[in-house]
Amino acid sequence: TKHFKVAVLPGDGIGPEVMAEALKVLDAVERRYDVRFERTPANVGGAAIDLEGKALPETTVAICQAADAILFGSVGGPKWESLPPNEQPERAALLPLRKTFDLFCNLRPAIIFPALTGASSLKQEIIEGGFDLLVVRELTGGIYFAEPKGIEGEGPARTGFDTMKYSEAEVERISHVAFAAARKRNKKLCSIDKANVLSTSVVWREVVERIGKEYPDVELSHMYVDNAAMQLVRWPKQFDVMLCGNMFGDIISDEAAMLTGSLGMLPSASLSEGTFGMYEPSGGSAPDIAGKGIANPIAQILSASMMLRYSFAMIDAADAIDAAVEKVLNDGYRTADIYQGHPGEKKVDTVTIGDAIVAAI
Amino acid sequence: TKHFKVAVLPGDGIGPEVMAEALKVLDAVERRYDVRFERTPANVGGAAIDLEGKALPETTVAICQAADAILFGSVGGPKWESLPPNEQPERAALLPLRKTFDLFCNLRPAIIFPALTGASSLKQEIIEGGFDLLVVRELTGGIYFAEPKGIEGEGPARTGFDTMKYSEAEVERISHVAFAAARKRNKKLCSIDKANVLSTSVVWREVVERIGKEYPDVELSHMYVDNAAMQLVRWPKQFDVMLCGNMFGDIISDEAAMLTGSLGMLPSASLSEGTFGMYEPSGGSAPDIAGKGIANPIAQILSASMMLRYSFAMIDAADAIDAAVEKVLNDGYRTADIYQGHPGEKKVDTVTIGDAIVAAI
Ligand SMILES: CC(C)[C@H](C(=O)O)[C@@H](O)C(=O)O
Ligand SMILES: CC(C)[C@H](C(=O)O)[C@@H](O)C(=O)O
Repeated sequence: TKHFKVAVLPGDGIGPEVMAEALKVLDAVERRYDVRFERTPANVGGAAIDLEGKALPETTVAICQAADAILFGSVGGPKWESLPPNEQPERAALLPLRKTFDLFCNLRPAIIFPALTGASSLKQEIIEGGFDLLVVRELTGGIYFAEPKGIEGEGPARTGFDTMKYSEAEVERISHVAFAAARKRNKKLCSIDKANVLSTSVVWREVVERIGKEYPDVELSHMYVDNAAMQLVRWPKQFDVMLCGNMFGDIISDEAAMLTGSLGMLPSASLSEGTFGMYEPSGGSAPDIAGKGIANPIAQILSASMMLRYSFAMIDAADAIDAAVEKVLNDGYRTADIYQGHPGEKKVDTVTIGDAIVAAI
Repeated sequence: TKHFKVAVLPGDGIGPEVMAEALKVLDAVERRYDVRFERTPANVGGAAIDLEGKALPETTVAICQAADAILFGSVGGPKWESLPPNEQPERAALLPLRKTFDLFCNLRPAIIFPALTGASSLKQEIIEGGFDLLVVRELTGGIYFAEPKGIEGEGPARTGFDTMKYSEAEVERISHVAFAAARKRNKKLCSIDKANVLSTSVVWREVVERIGKEYPDVELSHMYVDNAAMQLVRWPKQFDVMLCGNMFGDIISDEAAMLTGSLGMLPSASLSEGTFGMYEPSGGSAPDIAGKGIANPIAQILSASMMLRYSFAMIDAADAIDAAVEKVLNDGYRTADIYQGHPGEKKVDTVTIGDAIVAAI
């Protein structure tokens, strides 16, 4: 029997509700495969601020350190919105988690499930047949972490400043992940930068170009970030894998995710160099629908699937979860966020769609 | 007779063709209003590299310095794509022009013309009745200009770095422009930042908040840039004026422009503190259709209209140009980029639509 330790951080808003469904799915995997997931819950985000005085308590970090992977829900909500921006639950939980566990590689798939093309903001003719792109975002470098940053001076000269930085080594390691991912997909990598203005991007582009020589089967292109923001809207199918630095990836991956119209469907993985990783839905804590039992648990369930795939090398089990989600969608199950009233659709609550996915595994 | 000096910089690709139509429109304005536009042409971009060895020759700068405003076409094309990114025509022409003339304020309207909703990538139900938002982008500060920037170190530690900076004074002056613009529109201003991570954004948000007190009739909100990239796709009508720093404005304004589906329709203005400004289409030089006489000149013509409005205080004449463009669209005139084959549409070339606009003034 394989044995994995999972730190379970449900967080705020819909986090606990959708996490419950993902844990049911892990139960189902235990029944079907020879594996045990030892789960240890821990507080994070607003819930942790309320209970332990900070968004990422030491006890939570220790539980994560003892685990093989982190399954993360979502954090934040109106209750904590009056805190200064840099103390808000999302930022105060996520940034230190990423740094502590060197989660340098963020994988954010943006997929339109063929059953759900109607949910996208885009016209039918643009998304006909769906699209499937993967944003690979560097997650522990760039302007979100580099020093120096701060505020100095007085009066009108008082100036806020930040530093953007990337070393060759940092770009190399994220490039390898992106090229390897492209190799397993449609063999196209588009690297996003602003090399016509930023020195950081000049190094970024040189290194991506150099690493690309080791992956001659992958077609490499470069695109300025402003153009990428346009091209995503115009014709998202032109992209397979998009490789971005931390800040550009933040913006581009959110834009791509929203284009699918199914934010509640999209998982994400934040990986370190070994097998350790953190897995969380791309969407937020959706405080407006929290506690109503109507949230879409699929992003959380697919995050658990990514955990099996990337941290536990349980490819079959991950494929089984993904297939179960697809089957349940094809069977017409829809939570409110993806219900469109088409014939054959059944509007169901969080637990019902979770049960259906469990039954399909 | 009023007298204004205009530096005319057609540039590359479709630049000269669409500029010719804008100049015809200025002729029409001269015929109808008591004004003379003294126009001096100058080389810029790839054309200037070829003829004078650099994208922004001193002679061109001198001509601009002697003028009351710059009417700019577009620059760049495949011929110069093998140049290093920072020597490419667009970057090498635009950044020094902005700095030399202190063009700190970039106004980029993103409008869906009711006659053209079909051209947008967005679903009909999202853009029903069109939308009309204005991005106000700070254009001479932030990470595109601040020092230090460069590359240092060797081997894997070789690091590219840039500095992002905003002083209170810089944020104040762009905020005033944005609030004043909102006051004349729908009285809503959304300021875009990343104040949960960037110190620059902390100062940005504080100053915008403070200046906002002087405009109590304008409803102010703040949004993180990643969320803004999503919200634009989800529901662009929620925005009236979006205020952004240089880099966020670069990305957000391009995304917003592409959402309209009518890049060839959108003008822009880059203003200094006095009445001097530079006016140019939001789209690029479209080398694929250059020389064919089929480019859409409307963005260039509306840029001329913005010049009359902002640099020459000729509001009536600007309104007349805008109304003429609207009439010609309502009459069914369409260049290829906006032709959709609907009943009543006439597919016409650059000169024909230009003539129709001139006739309507
Ligand atoms: C909360 C914030 C710091 C974070 C980021 O920008 O990295 C979030 O937006 C994300 O993308 O995970
Ligand atoms: C060419 C480039 C430097 C420029 C910018 O990013 O400012 C362009 O993209 C623009 O938006 O006008």
